[in-house]
Amino acid sequence: MSNIDGKLISSKIREEIKADVKNYMIKPCLAVIQIGDDEASNIYVNSKEKACNEVGIYLKHIKFDETTREIEIINKIIELNNDEYVHGILLQLPIPDKFNEEKLINYIARNKDVDGLTDINVGKLINNKKCFVSCTPQGIIKLLQESNVEISGKNVVIVGRSKLVGKPLMSLFLNNDATVTICHSKTKNLKEFTKNADILVVAAGCKHLITEDMVKDGSVVIDVGINRVDGKIYGDVDYENVKKKASLITPVPGGVGPMTVAMLLNNVNISYKNMTNK
Amino acid sequence: MSNIDGKLISSKIREEIKADVKNYMIKPCLAVIQIGDDEASNIYVNSKEKACNEVGIYLKHIKFDETTREIEIINKIIELNNDEYVHGILLQLPIPDKFNEEKLINYIARNKDVDGLTDINVGKLINNKKCFVSCTPQGIIKLLQESNVEISGKNVVIVGRSKLVGKPLMSLFLNNDATVTICHSKTKNLKEFTKNADILVVAAGCKHLITEDMVKDGSVVIDVGINRVDGKIYGDVDYENVKKKASLITPVPGGVGPMTVAMLLNNVNISYKNMTNK
Repeated sequence: MSNIDGKLISSKIREEIKADVKNYMIKPCLAVIQIGDDEASNIYVNSKEKACNEVGIYLKHIKFDETTREIEIINKIIELNNDEYVHGILLQLPIPDKFNEEKLINYIARNKDVDGLTDINVGKLINNKKCFVSCTPQGIIKLLQESNVEISGKNVVIVGRSKLVGKPLMSLFLNNDATVTICHSKTKNLKEFTKNADILVVAAGCKHLITEDMVKDGSVVIDVGINRVDGKIYGDVDYENVKKKASLITPVPGGVGPMTVAMLLNNVNISYKNMTNK
Repeated sequence: MSNIDGKLISSKIREEIKADVKNYMIKPCLAVIQIGDDEASNIYVNSKEKACNEVGIYLKHIKFDETTREIEIINKIIELNNDEYVHGILLQLPIPDKFNEEKLINYIARNKDVDGLTDINVGKLINNKKCFVSCTPQGIIKLLQESNVEISGKNVVIVGRSKLVGKPLMSLFLNNDATVTICHSKTKNLKEFTKNADILVVAAGCKHLITEDMVKDGSVVIDVGINRVDGKIYGDVDYENVKKKASLITPVPGGVGPMTVAMLLNNVNISYKNMTNK
């Protein structure tokens, strides 16, 4: 088996973006809206800012107090939609419970929805039309393509049906001509599905859910899980044992993780090109 | 095995709608936009009109000449969107090639999109939010529910990935907690998937694609195919032989077919209720 090196592949993508941005008169701008002061969100926004800076993208961090009225946030989104110097807008999730996540996200203009989470972009994706695609699923397809894994005609099994990963990934694999099965918490005999997968993607949020006996010899295994247990990070796949059977496998960390931010930067760059006709 | 009787189930639904509509001051109105003079479309629109009349829905048939400019059709859609006496709008497909089907459909207001084909409704469906759902897939779920077929946890295999049937059906089954596999023309070893299906839905448009050896004993088989060969109608399933193994099966004709129009009437009725706060 060999590892799929997400760090290496993502750094190549970031270099390409950096080379593009160097030629722009105006910096691409990503607006990140944060509501409240969730500690994990602070860390994520900081790491996005660092990644943006490295390639020359300006991250405009807009932080609202938890007591802010919804209408103020909506007005800010509309203002950003209309701002020709803003090329991407994202709402940092999760947001406090009192806010309607779906409603706020769908105020984001679809041509600046670099997270690909608006209903209209989700609908376009499943029908294989040009749109912004959610970053993690897009990163997974990119990992496979860069590793020369053929997708067309392959038996792909996705474990997990979240709107951030499982569902958009199902659309992407289908658009790439794979036969796709989506499994989840209600699936009976998970193993019966996973052990026939040519490509197995696990995004269940469950430490070492996938064990050696559940995968096919020579398969490609993509682990999206990030489970923190006693200060250590574990994937959804029992890497040490599964790697004996897989032909290609992503480690955790260093597999899918680095791709997510790289694809976000990529989406901002695409939006910039669309908006400036580059 | 027993037949799932689509005629019977759909007539029950139509009776319920009829009973609702009897109490309305104003008739629900479905606007059907037809472009050109395609013979099959004429027949379909007529049969929709007949079905509407039977339950008390007014069908407003708007027929454009093939030489009409796109902007005139768009203006008509906008007019219908704003007409408080119009409760549903659909574009009769197919339309002549020179028109952009996607563009026109997406002008239909999502709250009147009774065919469930706008990007925004497709996106809402996959994320399990309230929306209008495409009629044939909705009819299939209804057939299963009326036949007391449990969906949650079942292994569902869909053959065909059209935007009218396969893709929205995948969303619906997933929202109903089934494990879903979607197969299509690029699938290798179709039989390996179909023979494990608890519920098999075939919408491939290929006469007798599914033979006895490809289905599991006791499975539920839904045949969406309508293939006209030498003046006769055939399904995608070799009914005579497959029925020996299936516990429940839809005949062609008389299975899924009658449900499509019934669900359209149902969507118009739902839209009427939404618009009038019934």
